[in-house]
Amino acid sequence: MTINKTLVYKKIPQKSLVAGEHIVVEDLEIDLDTVPKNGLLVEILYVSLDPYLRIMMRDPKIKYNIDPFPVGSPVIETAVVKILKSDADGFEAGETILANVPIAQYARIDNLKDAELQKIDNPYGLPLAHFLGALGMPGLTAYSGLYEVGKPKVGETIFISSAAGAVGQVVGQIAKREGLRVIGSVGSDEKLKFITEELGFDAGFNYKKESPHDALPRLAPDGLDIYYENVGGDHLEASLCNMKRHGRIVVCGMITTYGIPPLEQKPVRGLGQLDACQIKMQGFLVWDAEYGPAYHQEHQKRVQEWIHEGSFQAKLHVTEGIENAATSLVGMLEGRNFGKPVLKVK
Amino acid sequence: MTINKTLVYKKIPQKSLVAGEHIVVEDLEIDLDTVPKNGLLVEILYVSLDPYLRIMMRDPKIKYNIDPFPVGSPVIETAVVKILKSDADGFEAGETILANVPIAQYARIDNLKDAELQKIDNPYGLPLAHFLGALGMPGLTAYSGLYEVGKPKVGETIFISSAAGAVGQVVGQIAKREGLRVIGSVGSDEKLKFITEELGFDAGFNYKKESPHDALPRLAPDGLDIYYENVGGDHLEASLCNMKRHGRIVVCGMITTYGIPPLEQKPVRGLGQLDACQIKMQGFLVWDAEYGPAYHQEHQKRVQEWIHEGSFQAKLHVTEGIENAATSLVGMLEGRNFGKPVLKVK
Repeated sequence: MTINKTLVYKKIPQKSLVAGEHIVVEDLEIDLDTVPKNGLLVEILYVSLDPYLRIMMRDPKIKYNIDPFPVGSPVIETAVVKILKSDADGFEAGETILANVPIAQYARIDNLKDAELQKIDNPYGLPLAHFLGALGMPGLTAYSGLYEVGKPKVGETIFISSAAGAVGQVVGQIAKREGLRVIGSVGSDEKLKFITEELGFDAGFNYKKESPHDALPRLAPDGLDIYYENVGGDHLEASLCNMKRHGRIVVCGMITTYGIPPLEQKPVRGLGQLDACQIKMQGFLVWDAEYGPAYHQEHQKRVQEWIHEGSFQAKLHVTEGIENAATSLVGMLEGRNFGKPVLKVK
Repeated sequence: MTINKTLVYKKIPQKSLVAGEHIVVEDLEIDLDTVPKNGLLVEILYVSLDPYLRIMMRDPKIKYNIDPFPVGSPVIETAVVKILKSDADGFEAGETILANVPIAQYARIDNLKDAELQKIDNPYGLPLAHFLGALGMPGLTAYSGLYEVGKPKVGETIFISSAAGAVGQVVGQIAKREGLRVIGSVGSDEKLKFITEELGFDAGFNYKKESPHDALPRLAPDGLDIYYENVGGDHLEASLCNMKRHGRIVVCGMITTYGIPPLEQKPVRGLGQLDACQIKMQGFLVWDAEYGPAYHQEHQKRVQEWIHEGSFQAKLHVTEGIENAATSLVGMLEGRNFGKPVLKVK
């Protein structure tokens, strides 16, 4: 048996998730000599760190579209893995694929379906970590939500919260290509500079220095056509107050509500605007048929091409070393990442 | 000149609309001897009283999809009118039509377009006041919002607030025909009896006696597929907390927010459920192309037939006499009507 450092979910967080308390990197053991029947033995190269993990580590009483992790079990995420041994049809040792695995150094995959294995089609030889970011679930979320709910039109104005994040940066760059005026909110001046100077956003603000209630009327005096929602709270409230008629609110996520029972979430004013301005608000899950599956092919084709030709930025925030798994996950939830957070295990 | 008792908007209400203070019936004068060039002279038979009137009498600083009435001008509504004199092509003296006119005894219509004249197609000879209710704007609102946003499916559960009102009673009866389980909230025990015993709702509650937060888990333990929203506030909050995955919230109106600036409206918790359960919330205006205009024909055909054959109830709350215009309008806003409020002018 070999030591397999693994991120384990130890305790349900009542408020913030604390590294070392609720999630801990532990020395588990793994058998690297054999392969599970009809399964795979893999080495984990890159692991994605995504906000929905907070939902997976919540009080089970809080309703959600997915059951939380059982306490005491490893934290599961999507990863780029290298197959060490294969007993599964269609998968060869040496191949690099995507799989849902424990955040760890190695994994034994018994159930191919649960692990949601995906081949990586990478004709331009792009860096593999992008398949966890702009070319992965966050990128497909950004892409499908923007088109399916946002229905962007040339000349419209879109506001994106968490604009430098894994989803926000993709939404903003696509919206620019579609001819929209793009406004973003971020949590630091460095990120503000990034979205306006490097990603080409038309404007933005640091929400730690200026409330969305002040910033939006200043930056979008004619109002918003689309709000791409990643945070909830004040951002949602201010967007509601500044939407135009027939505005669309793409509810990709609301990180400020994750793990908080509905009636303890920060209340939001201004919902009468939905009626007043005929606004549509739509929550979605990337795996629902009309979102990710419907847009997967065009998302891969277009975004791979753009990254390859250098016209699209896919900024990664890479932390190295499995021993940093807990702190980097918490850092992501607290917005300390700058770009799509990825853990480079090896 | 003849005395023409008219409901006049006198003063912007800061809180509730008060009869005799903000709206007053006044003796204006009208010329009944001539007809406006290319226009009509009409006698007003029935006037509709609808919640949106509160929006038309609000602080102009509050954004909405429509400009408020100017202070000092008559209150305008849809009415069944009889043409006394006509100088307009296609309209004859003696005809009964729908028109937007001052709430008054008579009106001179100069601008046919602004008055939104509509012929009444009444093959079964149904009572004319229904064309202000189940067969009019409220009925078409109910119908188009339910189908276009709600997308009802057999076996689903719908919750309707203000269920005995002009819109709610139509929504509930159609939803029953579509094979849904139908739950309603109302403001009195008498209305509760009406929706469950006469309209065929499966269940209901009196929100003055039981909070929606208590009633919904009790009456819909498996959750809601559709919430037909007419009120806002607690009703919306409790519905969010009790929606199933892929639930739809049809935002027809939010009477508790009318005339109140967005940031002074009662805040709502639980918006994270939009994300958690992939809920859609859609505000709409019946006159937008994909709503009223798209459903107008089938709405008229089906609901006229149902009323004619006696399988559909279209309960009216008729107040008689123009002198009661102000009090009956306020009564409607305060929920004291029982059925669709109509003022019988003559």
